[in-house]
Amino acid sequence: MRVLITSGGTTENIDSVRGITNFATGRLGKLIAERFLIQNHEVILLAGLQALVPDNHDNLTIIRISGVANLLETMQNYLPTVDVVVHSMAVSDYTPIYMTDFETVAKSDDITEFLSASNEEKKISSHSDYQVLFLKKTPKVIKSIKTINQNVILFGFKLLVDVPKEHLIQVASTSLTQNKADFILANDLTTITAERHLGLLVSQNAIIEAKTKLDIADLIVAKSKETYDQNHTRRNW
Amino acid sequence: MRVLITSGGTTENIDSVRGITNFATGRLGKLIAERFLIQNHEVILLAGLQALVPDNHDNLTIIRISGVANLLETMQNYLPTVDVVVHSMAVSDYTPIYMTDFETVAKSDDITEFLSASNEEKKISSHSDYQVLFLKKTPKVIKSIKTINQNVILFGFKLLVDVPKEHLIQVASTSLTQNKADFILANDLTTITAERHLGLLVSQNAIIEAKTKLDIADLIVAKSKETYDQNHTRRNW
Repeated sequence: MRVLITSGGTTENIDSVRGITNFATGRLGKLIAERFLIQNHEVILLAGLQALVPDNHDNLTIIRISGVANLLETMQNYLPTVDVVVHSMAVSDYTPIYMTDFETVAKSDDITEFLSASNEEKKISSHSDYQVLFLKKTPKVIKSIKTINQNVILFGFKLLVDVPKEHLIQVASTSLTQNKADFILANDLTTITAERHLGLLVSQNAIIEAKTKLDIADLIVAKSKETYDQNHTRRNW
Repeated sequence: MRVLITSGGTTENIDSVRGITNFATGRLGKLIAERFLIQNHEVILLAGLQALVPDNHDNLTIIRISGVANLLETMQNYLPTVDVVVHSMAVSDYTPIYMTDFETVAKSDDITEFLSASNEEKKISSHSDYQVLFLKKTPKVIKSIKTINQNVILFGFKLLVDVPKEHLIQVASTSLTQNKADFILANDLTTITAERHLGLLVSQNAIIEAKTKLDIADLIVAKSKETYDQNHTRRNW
């Protein structure tokens, strides 16, 4: 199989010296890539600027990704040619539009003016005690995947923080439907450490629990293979 | 000599999964540390979470720094015991207070209410097309250094983006006075590449040009030693 994995976090620039970063080490994405490679699959890894990546391998292509726009553009090139997508990257939901002094915003009659403003300075500087940053929603990357290649086997990820297991499963189920994903790996930041990583692999007909990053990686490889074989048997009938 | 070096960039959290990062590789700070170590000086390196750092060395202590508050606290522990401070870290000028939907801000009668608000959620989520992030000024780290140890030899850094050389020198001179620094290394992002790194080492009575990271590092080591020797000769009279 040919597998596209996204990993690490995106960075959305505020100006040329600072940006909003989604925290993610890329450790899980790296491991998933390695487990696919061991089984002789071909891997394209789209990795955040600071993400950990596997050692060089003949079947591995690594491409560094900055922000959401860059991720979407790069994905579009590869999506038509892959069988599986494991979208584990922590993608920014919002991207900066404009930053200005608090006083400027406070005295504005209509703050929608700032939604179409842009900073001229390459490094925004200010003497004000407070600043205000306006942000807009980024395009939903996971939602675009099946619109580009409907045959791909899609694994999405949902990371929540300190929620009940039922809520985690509910959010994952909604994401399955909304994004036409085949599987959602749901996890909670409070149950992730260097050693342990609780994950629930949610599909339309099952929920499978994994307890470590290695469990999660191997489960994703196994489910990819199983689904790929089912699809190809069915198509050959 | 005992030398404190700060390097890389700070990260100010928005919530538990994202933050504002100052871009900085830590490459120059790493090199400055290495050049001091080669001359048998003792180095304490306060490095951003993603910053490059030197290999282990008997005379080197590395401490990872997250945000500005963490930097200030860690600095205060070491400042009384060091002879030289090279403050090359890219420090965030502002830190997040509160993030909310654009609509909530637009309909507020008095937006100062958001300056004392705080997000309850550990991961801020929203369905709004636009969000607004309120930020407040961080304490000025460089200004606090001489107030804690007035005998330290202080190197500050000023990074600007695409400005005339005269402006760079003027900003560096102002910083010298305001922060009681002994030297300011002034540089411009547009004249920094992997190979070249134009820098101006500005002091009250001289401006010295450097063309590479190695030039800059060696100049800082040489000027530290020279100033240290002058101070100690003077004190022993």
